[in-house]
Amino acid sequence: MTLPADGVEIRLASRPEGWPTSENFTITRAAVPAVGAGQVLVRNLVMSVDPYMRGRMNDTKSYIPPFEVGTALEGGAVGEVIASESPDLAVGDVVLHGLGWREFAVVDAGNAVKVDPGLAGGAYGVFLGVLGMPGLTAYAGLLKAADFREGDVVFVSGAAGAVGSLVGQIAKLRGAAKVIGSAGSAEKVAHLKDDLGFDEAFNYKDGPVLEQLEKAAPEGIDVYFDNVAGEHLEAALSVANQGARFALCGAISQYNEKNEVVAPRNLFNAITKGMNLRGFIVAEYGDLKEQFFAEVGGWLAEGKLVARETVVEGLENAPTAFIDLMRGANTGKMLVKI
Amino acid sequence: MTLPADGVEIRLASRPEGWPTSENFTITRAAVPAVGAGQVLVRNLVMSVDPYMRGRMNDTKSYIPPFEVGTALEGGAVGEVIASESPDLAVGDVVLHGLGWREFAVVDAGNAVKVDPGLAGGAYGVFLGVLGMPGLTAYAGLLKAADFREGDVVFVSGAAGAVGSLVGQIAKLRGAAKVIGSAGSAEKVAHLKDDLGFDEAFNYKDGPVLEQLEKAAPEGIDVYFDNVAGEHLEAALSVANQGARFALCGAISQYNEKNEVVAPRNLFNAITKGMNLRGFIVAEYGDLKEQFFAEVGGWLAEGKLVARETVVEGLENAPTAFIDLMRGANTGKMLVKI
Repeated sequence: MTLPADGVEIRLASRPEGWPTSENFTITRAAVPAVGAGQVLVRNLVMSVDPYMRGRMNDTKSYIPPFEVGTALEGGAVGEVIASESPDLAVGDVVLHGLGWREFAVVDAGNAVKVDPGLAGGAYGVFLGVLGMPGLTAYAGLLKAADFREGDVVFVSGAAGAVGSLVGQIAKLRGAAKVIGSAGSAEKVAHLKDDLGFDEAFNYKDGPVLEQLEKAAPEGIDVYFDNVAGEHLEAALSVANQGARFALCGAISQYNEKNEVVAPRNLFNAITKGMNLRGFIVAEYGDLKEQFFAEVGGWLAEGKLVARETVVEGLENAPTAFIDLMRGANTGKMLVKI
Repeated sequence: MTLPADGVEIRLASRPEGWPTSENFTITRAAVPAVGAGQVLVRNLVMSVDPYMRGRMNDTKSYIPPFEVGTALEGGAVGEVIASESPDLAVGDVVLHGLGWREFAVVDAGNAVKVDPGLAGGAYGVFLGVLGMPGLTAYAGLLKAADFREGDVVFVSGAAGAVGSLVGQIAKLRGAAKVIGSAGSAEKVAHLKDDLGFDEAFNYKDGPVLEQLEKAAPEGIDVYFDNVAGEHLEAALSVANQGARFALCGAISQYNEKNEVVAPRNLFNAITKGMNLRGFIVAEYGDLKEQFFAEVGGWLAEGKLVARETVVEGLENAPTAFIDLMRGANTGKMLVKI
């Protein structure tokens, strides 16, 4: 097999100010780098767009370095090894790695994880979703950061997204008394209740979050899994029961906001209610992976978990997929098929 | 001994809007109630004014019910039993109880704790300070809520107050790498460094808290004990190290604020830094009392802890003492000698 000389890749053209637009991205062809010792050449099959990528598009110091303007973006992807200079991976292996946003990636073998194509039945997107980073985020965030306990009333925002939809389902499978979700459309609300088994769900665009949450949870909430921040977090602080536990996972209401953030204005509730607020990123919980694969993989195999995907076709549409993700166009995990 | 027919008591005249004034209090004489079965009559010797009392002056639902307008205020006090209808307490016993703000209190024996006058050498204020509620607040808040660990860099706001001054000293005694305090005057800053052994201290009125904190803690902070909220909390979130732990204990910058609270605007740091924020009130940690008395009592007996008091003479000056407390006039525990 002749190796490709070049391939499509997507670069950051400029840093978005506020909401990202297509002008922040460059779709171009670039030479495929040489495969060095210990590396493999991967033909990407599917890639992930995730909300956290928005943060990397800013020039701010954070837990991972910012993307660089003029160079290819990065992110989770699954592809097939088409050349190998590593004894650990062979041509034909399917691997999960961190160099998405491009047709061909040269990856250090140590940064590529071989996945079992049998487990997914060829639908590799699960390794970027329910059995991947969003799945572990939901699992570890709920069980560790929020210290979920059987009998809890659980509220999750962004509940129709990749992480939120799993948080709600895992809470139910682990014995939550009640699971409440918020989402941004009537269709998503129906999906939460009809397909995912949420007890209550509401469209945050229908009215103040606090009013809708109070109605959905007259008994208060014990756990809040926050993907949104802002008004959602304030409502959850108001409605929280004594000793409530919050997992702070995301703040999508703020990622594209140019105005100054003013919330939460009622954090004092955390004192009077003896609450715990735990911020986290998934990397912290790597040691939970084995337990996660066993439990969540088991539920998935038994058909107890619904893992909806929104799949966009074509690498050239990845910027649009990302922009749409920011606006909540997806239900479940947003993927780009390459 | 003839029992008193009446005595001075201080009532809430009206709920303060913003900063409390003397007009919010009524100083009056009232009949001493009859001592019922299981009760004792106590002549109060010393009483406490505490920041949390401000919250009870508002008509808002919280962990304790609000004070009622027209009735006597309540709060920690130590006094001598002068009549007893309880087999558990005898005339002459010295007891700690919750009915301060009055000369004579009729207390259910079950709500009065006999204290050892020998321990305090007759200075009963310690039972309202270092060995009382503020002491346990500092001890449990630092060790449990903030999960303090040897080698931590610790920042405490309101550091010259009853709680803050103990937090810093306990942290040093327990092996903190560095203890930083903020306070509201040059005298207090000197007290923190010269008398209490803080490594760094600054006057928050001298300039932006963030700038001063960054200078005091170029290595970042691992623990923040928050008595103040607002700008202090935002600065601490900015300067926090990965995995930092915050104990949220008070918000004195906000208690008398009529304008809407706008902070913290940078809570997103809690996510990227994997931080834990734990709100608490001391009642939650009652099971720690025995350990607290043993360890803190030991340090006190060995002269390893400085427990400064600001003592105001005369029950009629209790409203002024409280108002002054709100403005930070005290160094260490604020007490009213009756």
